[in-house]
Amino acid sequence: MIHEIATLTIDPTRAADFEAAVNQARPHFEAAKGFVSFALERSIETPEKYLLVIGWDSVEAHMVDFRESDGFQAWRALASPFFVTPPSVEHVAKVI
Amino acid sequence: MIHEIATLTIDPTRAADFEAAVNQARPHFEAAKGFVSFALERSIETPEKYLLVIGWDSVEAHMVDFRESDGFQAWRALASPFFVTPPSVEHVAKVI
Repeated sequence: MIHEIATLTIDPTRAADFEAAVNQARPHFEAAKGFVSFALERSIETPEKYLLVIGWDSVEAHMVDFRESDGFQAWRALASPFFVTPPSVEHVAKVI
Repeated sequence: MIHEIATLTIDPTRAADFEAAVNQARPHFEAAKGFVSFALERSIETPEKYLLVIGWDSVEAHMVDFRESDGFQAWRALASPFFVTPPSVEHVAKVI
């Protein structure tokens, strides 16, 4: 199991609407093959910055299976209108 | 409850020794006032990059209580010899 960490930067005056959109998109992740866990974290020092932290069975479950799915299109349709810069994505594996 | 996310960059050829040092330092976090949880995550795309993810009761538990404690000095003595750039630290709060 790995975590996708997507760094999302939005207009902080639209934070409530953005969080509602992410909540609405959440079932598209939960229905995906290889999905493990879902969290949205907001930076305390930088309120326009959020981390979407998704657990997946593997990097491939995210980058191939999910990215090629209708669920990914639905997520992006809901969330991308809020992005003020393109999201950046990395994957991490727990070592301790 | 909040998470501290410390981004740590090390020489990847020393990864095993670094991970052993973090494991050795772990009890200093676990003994701290306001400590909640501990994880070390390694970037898959950037193997020299680690995220130390510590749950705390509050930002103050980390930035005041822990930073002024002997446990912080012990952590830094163990880990900082591996750092190739200064760590960066941010705090996040779960919104979903």
